[in-house]
Amino acid sequence: MTQVDLNCDLGESFGRYTLGLDEQVLPYITSANIACGFHAGDPEVMQKTVDLAVANNVALGAHPGLRDLAGFGRRKMQIAPATAKAEVKYQVGALQAFAPTHRLHHVKPHGALYNMAAKDYDLAYAICEGIKEVDPEIKLVGLANSELIRAAQAIGLPYEQEVFADRAYEADGSLVSRQKPGAVIEDTQEAVERTIAMIKTHQVTTIDGQTIAIEPDTVCVHGDGVKAVAFVKQIHQALLDNGIKVIAG
Amino acid sequence: MTQVDLNCDLGESFGRYTLGLDEQVLPYITSANIACGFHAGDPEVMQKTVDLAVANNVALGAHPGLRDLAGFGRRKMQIAPATAKAEVKYQVGALQAFAPTHRLHHVKPHGALYNMAAKDYDLAYAICEGIKEVDPEIKLVGLANSELIRAAQAIGLPYEQEVFADRAYEADGSLVSRQKPGAVIEDTQEAVERTIAMIKTHQVTTIDGQTIAIEPDTVCVHGDGVKAVAFVKQIHQALLDNGIKVIAG
Amino acid sequence: MTQVDLNCDLGESFGRYTLGLDEQVLPYITSANIACGFHAGDPEVMQKTVDLAVANNVALGAHPGLRDLAGFGRRKMQIAPATAKAEVKYQVGALQAFAPTHRLHHVKPHGALYNMAAKDYDLAYAICEGIKEVDPEIKLVGLANSELIRAAQAIGLPYEQEVFADRAYEADGSLVSRQKPGAVIEDTQEAVERTIAMIKTHQVTTIDGQTIAIEPDTVCVHGDGVKAVAFVKQIHQALLDNGIKVIAG
Amino acid sequence: MTQVDLNCDLGESFGRYTLGLDEQVLPYITSANIACGFHAGDPEVMQKTVDLAVANNVALGAHPGLRDLAGFGRRKMQIAPATAKAEVKYQVGALQAFAPTHRLHHVKPHGALYNMAAKDYDLAYAICEGIKEVDPEIKLVGLANSELIRAAQAIGLPYEQEVFADRAYEADGSLVSRQKPGAVIEDTQEAVERTIAMIKTHQVTTIDGQTIAIEPDTVCVHGDGVKAVAFVKQIHQALLDNGIKVIAG
Repeated sequence: MTQVDLNCDLGESFGRYTLGLDEQVLPYITSANIACGFHAGDPEVMQKTVDLAVANNVALGAHPGLRDLAGFGRRKMQIAPATAKAEVKYQVGALQAFAPTHRLHHVKPHGALYNMAAKDYDLAYAICEGIKEVDPEIKLVGLANSELIRAAQAIGLPYEQEVFADRAYEADGSLVSRQKPGAVIEDTQEAVERTIAMIKTHQVTTIDGQTIAIEPDTVCVHGDGVKAVAFVKQIHQALLDNGIKVIAG
Repeated sequence: MTQVDLNCDLGESFGRYTLGLDEQVLPYITSANIACGFHAGDPEVMQKTVDLAVANNVALGAHPGLRDLAGFGRRKMQIAPATAKAEVKYQVGALQAFAPTHRLHHVKPHGALYNMAAKDYDLAYAICEGIKEVDPEIKLVGLANSELIRAAQAIGLPYEQEVFADRAYEADGSLVSRQKPGAVIEDTQEAVERTIAMIKTHQVTTIDGQTIAIEPDTVCVHGDGVKAVAFVKQIHQALLDNGIKVIAG
Repeated sequence: MTQVDLNCDLGESFGRYTLGLDEQVLPYITSANIACGFHAGDPEVMQKTVDLAVANNVALGAHPGLRDLAGFGRRKMQIAPATAKAEVKYQVGALQAFAPTHRLHHVKPHGALYNMAAKDYDLAYAICEGIKEVDPEIKLVGLANSELIRAAQAIGLPYEQEVFADRAYEADGSLVSRQKPGAVIEDTQEAVERTIAMIKTHQVTTIDGQTIAIEPDTVCVHGDGVKAVAFVKQIHQALLDNGIKVIAG
Repeated sequence: MTQVDLNCDLGESFGRYTLGLDEQVLPYITSANIACGFHAGDPEVMQKTVDLAVANNVALGAHPGLRDLAGFGRRKMQIAPATAKAEVKYQVGALQAFAPTHRLHHVKPHGALYNMAAKDYDLAYAICEGIKEVDPEIKLVGLANSELIRAAQAIGLPYEQEVFADRAYEADGSLVSRQKPGAVIEDTQEAVERTIAMIKTHQVTTIDGQTIAIEPDTVCVHGDGVKAVAFVKQIHQALLDNGIKVIAG
């Protein structure tokens, strides 16, 4: 039976600061990417988020980011592969400590680390090495068709290829830059239908009209606002209605 | 056969900043307390220190501290037990990630966290709970006769009672405050002999001349200077000369 | 004519995290205590907040806190007076840079720094020294009758004594601890009337029924929620209705 | 009379961590670039460094860096011009607070911020705007012939063009990348002679043998090791011997 994972970033609050509608989105997703304290999150938030995810039967994933709380890990930064590897190991281990009886299901790099590694094989390889050294059964979640996936394949790390419901694709399988017109699919119904088509056909139509192959193992959704949560409910229902099982892969 | 553990704080460098003569002290100690990034250390330093300790056959321990890099974790801070518990779990998990095939041997809280917990049962209990939840076989290293030891006993966590070679003791088993005269034993030969006597007799003479019971499972030594390293060599040799086995407990 | 200052903490957002209804509260206050990056705030938030305060004709004040973003500067911390002095100078200078043509009107220490200094003369003196060294015409805003005010008097720094509309007082002029029953005056009308009485009579009735002297130069209000902003409007109107001028002192 | 400024980065210690031979190098330099807490330094170190510089009659300069203590401000980072501007203002103001009676002489961006701005006019312009808004008489110290100098000229900010004694130049006036052979002039005597020639002739021979114009207002020296300090003494003496006045411009 056709299936897909629905993953969402969670646990992004920090100290006095609250972010995200974690409790509202958890019933509709299957995988949680939990911030690990470098770009967002703190130890108490991590514990609370792990407990919430477990209570909702959602698979636990680490969401390691760059050491940039002020920039929320979204700013590209020069980072040596050895540094990235050590920082990923650190964050994955820290999260695992809050769920000693639940092996982590996946690791999804956050923000600029994810985007840089999608295009930089050496960085992607270092991240995969770090994950594998901590636990070789943890899956990498990375952009479909990107260097992250190639690195996971090379190193023998299990992985899930991630697709974005609301983003257009280039012919090489990369996301169309947000700077370009047409990069974001604004109509939610169109985004949902497009995602279902990707899952069923393993193909996607690029921004210039070509058809390329894509393996949508997991779909990225968001829980940082009322509209985002509404979209998660919509896509979750549409997947079920189309006979697609929603489950952590 | 009588035995004792020799533990030392390691991995206290951070980024561009170097601290400690880790490589020089490692051949003479049996347990490493490795900084975990909150008061000192960073992920790359942690990996390097773990690798050095393993190469020297030294037992690995986490050295979690307060979130106070500017104060090196030495400043007392109001911290809720739940916060301390989560921060200890975070740091222990982070360190474990750098040694996936070597189970951590112990956790020794650092600086102000150690000192506060030695006198505050609730805080000590929260720290022990945190350690136990991550791995119930990790030993707590805490001040002999302190609340840390009482909490470990209450919760059923294995522990090592720590003594200080160069510090005077009060009648209640606590360390004489550094503000008081006589708090520090300046003569290294006297410090060594006093330590050996503690190990052999399970007793120590307090600053006011009483004799109290003490169980020296592990002795704290330092590697942050040439004199400190010389003292480690001296006490290590003296222990061997007195038929005391030096080994991680 | 009787007058009083209404001060409010502002600029507490940080990076991706938003906090406080700054724009809504600014029309009703006369003094802004702007976070300086140690416990909250960041350089861009500081610039924006300074600009908003100037546009609303609100006096600019620095709100230096402990170096504790994770704890929002609310956790007591062991801090040497020399460290506090240097950290206050740093933060005051940083804020002044965003308003080069508007001399800062005041400095109000934040959270645990304020509370500790209210009871610790040496710490209070160090803070006042720091302010005076940066600019001897900046006013200290400190708890009425506290060590902060005594230190400002001793050092010759101008000051404003601060009162809290919704807090009960002990016979020694200190605030009743929030742990004790009756510490907080829940009824907003009662809080308003009590404040106006303090301003008009220079006296306040303590929790145990005594009458003590108090000089309410400035009243602390909050802008961190819809109810808080409603209270600011209420007290602002009540002050005007009672013929009390609302103005930065 | 021909003259030149000798500038050196100082105040790079942080908390428990010590870096640099500040006291040894101060007698031979004329301008201090003092770290401001983002990439290195802390408030107490800043105060101490300002006091040492003043005692040595050395001109005070702020040395603002990226918010990256872990990377010592040496890692390139995506930073919006508005963020850079605000962060420069913050750091310049913070340093000024430690020297209220000594107007800052200059601002020299640190590390990656300096290198990025040397090639990015928008970033350079934002930095110059920030400096000018804090105090329009503070000089920018920037790489000779770089975008930093062009931005200072455009905005009307005074500036000093900086040269490096031990670095080779490209035909466009930029420094030869450290990745290329010949980038660093290892022979100290050659470095000294080359610097003196630049000062006297306002020309430098590039790595590919061309002669280009250069205006060496200030020479960058280092104080982070015994060899570095020896070189500072050597170049200082050679400048005097060649009739070049060593003075903050």
